[in-house]
Amino acid sequence: MTDAAHPFDRALQLQTVDAGTVRGTTRPDWANMVGPFGGITAAVLLRAVENRPDRIGDPLALTVNFAAPIADGDFDIALRAARTNRSNQHWMLELRQGDEVKTTATALFGLHRDTWADDESRPPSVPAPEDVAPGSFVDAIVWPKRYDMRFAEGPVPLRAVEPSASSTTTLWVRDAEGRPLDFAGLACLSDVFFPRAFLRRGKFLPAGTISLTTYFHADRTEIEAVGADYLLASAHANRFSRGYFDQSAHLWSRNGRLLASTHQLVYFKD
Amino acid sequence: MTDAAHPFDRALQLQTVDAGTVRGTTRPDWANMVGPFGGITAAVLLRAVENRPDRIGDPLALTVNFAAPIADGDFDIALRAARTNRSNQHWMLELRQGDEVKTTATALFGLHRDTWADDESRPPSVPAPEDVAPGSFVDAIVWPKRYDMRFAEGPVPLRAVEPSASSTTTLWVRDAEGRPLDFAGLACLSDVFFPRAFLRRGKFLPAGTISLTTYFHADRTEIEAVGADYLLASAHANRFSRGYFDQSAHLWSRNGRLLASTHQLVYFKD
Repeated sequence: MTDAAHPFDRALQLQTVDAGTVRGTTRPDWANMVGPFGGITAAVLLRAVENRPDRIGDPLALTVNFAAPIADGDFDIALRAARTNRSNQHWMLELRQGDEVKTTATALFGLHRDTWADDESRPPSVPAPEDVAPGSFVDAIVWPKRYDMRFAEGPVPLRAVEPSASSTTTLWVRDAEGRPLDFAGLACLSDVFFPRAFLRRGKFLPAGTISLTTYFHADRTEIEAVGADYLLASAHANRFSRGYFDQSAHLWSRNGRLLASTHQLVYFKD
Repeated sequence: MTDAAHPFDRALQLQTVDAGTVRGTTRPDWANMVGPFGGITAAVLLRAVENRPDRIGDPLALTVNFAAPIADGDFDIALRAARTNRSNQHWMLELRQGDEVKTTATALFGLHRDTWADDESRPPSVPAPEDVAPGSFVDAIVWPKRYDMRFAEGPVPLRAVEPSASSTTTLWVRDAEGRPLDFAGLACLSDVFFPRAFLRRGKFLPAGTISLTTYFHADRTEIEAVGADYLLASAHANRFSRGYFDQSAHLWSRNGRLLASTHQLVYFKD
């Protein structure tokens, strides 16, 4: 593998093993509490499909199921197009270490075409990123250092605080080193939110994403137009119940275009 | 196969083919414009996992990718547990007819346990189902006849109408013959909404769900408590763009508990 300049591109480097398998390696730059940040796993799975010469179109939907922690080191991604249509393609993926499946995923790629269009989403009204102070995550966790995050609402409860009645976090976020956005970068950012239960309980507790689904509304041109600028990202939970909660989130460009909708189911203990 | 009494149970009848394959058949009761209603396909995939003696716990998350129309007749479902943990299990499924993959899916099952809980969702304020007139779908489509649907907001535009500024539909819905709710029934109802583009354009147009994800918040006890009563179901789109739009929806019990959150990506032409 060549040594890519940026930590994100390094984490997405993949070697071909055989016609249906590629190999990557975890990178310390993206370490989470246990194993790598879920966002970088989503990104590397998406990239495995993007790299395929027989791939049709651009990412439309990605579901990643985090079945077990990925250990530091090499991993294999087995992928195949389960169905190829004229204008879209359905991929199935498994990330394995040795004989163990660590992650499963499905990815839908497809062609865009001109249609009637409308953005019905409404970004929350917040100050410009330049007017919000840079935020901080827990210092011991590495991956957040890859981003410039500015919390307009619902920051990380770094010290135990009063439980909040709202699970909503809204932040401006961009790559810390100015890497321009691409589809894989957007997939990575779809998991940028800390667990919503932290806000509702006013403290940290054991929690982890178990299934993540992202819908890509933006096409390639729109993503390239973002460049390295901030995205506005807002997430909330709908229900916490018997060990699990969901999260729905949206990622807008600075000019208020919805680039992605993303949802997840999270395990928690409390 | 024995002849189950209710159309839903008939559609969910599965025969064992081998250790990793079961066989079902499409039922005219659930016909959509082309092929069966997506909800019944989601339900039969979930049921295939539910039937497995080695299955752990109850449904937590289900993603179904509609890769190609299912033809009338038999279909095979290949399924396997990609990963079994102590408290959850990750399933991968493929629905095939002959050599062709028609649907792919992932399903997460797991155990519930007592934790702090809160329902942060807010059901829309609408009249009781008894005070809303029964609604109608297009008469030529069969599956909606399986349900008693009462539209409080955003009914089907049966005649061409003015485009609406809102993509929201809110309805009360229950099984037309009083079948009590179960997990498969909830999976089916997660696809009960007609395409949001119909409201925004004030007309019918070609559209179809391509990926559907449902998170099950309710446990078995809570679902059984619903019985055959109405659910309140509300759906909206976030963005329509270049051939695709997303939909986010929520299904509450009459007493306002969020039973499921469900999201989908839809293809459309206009």
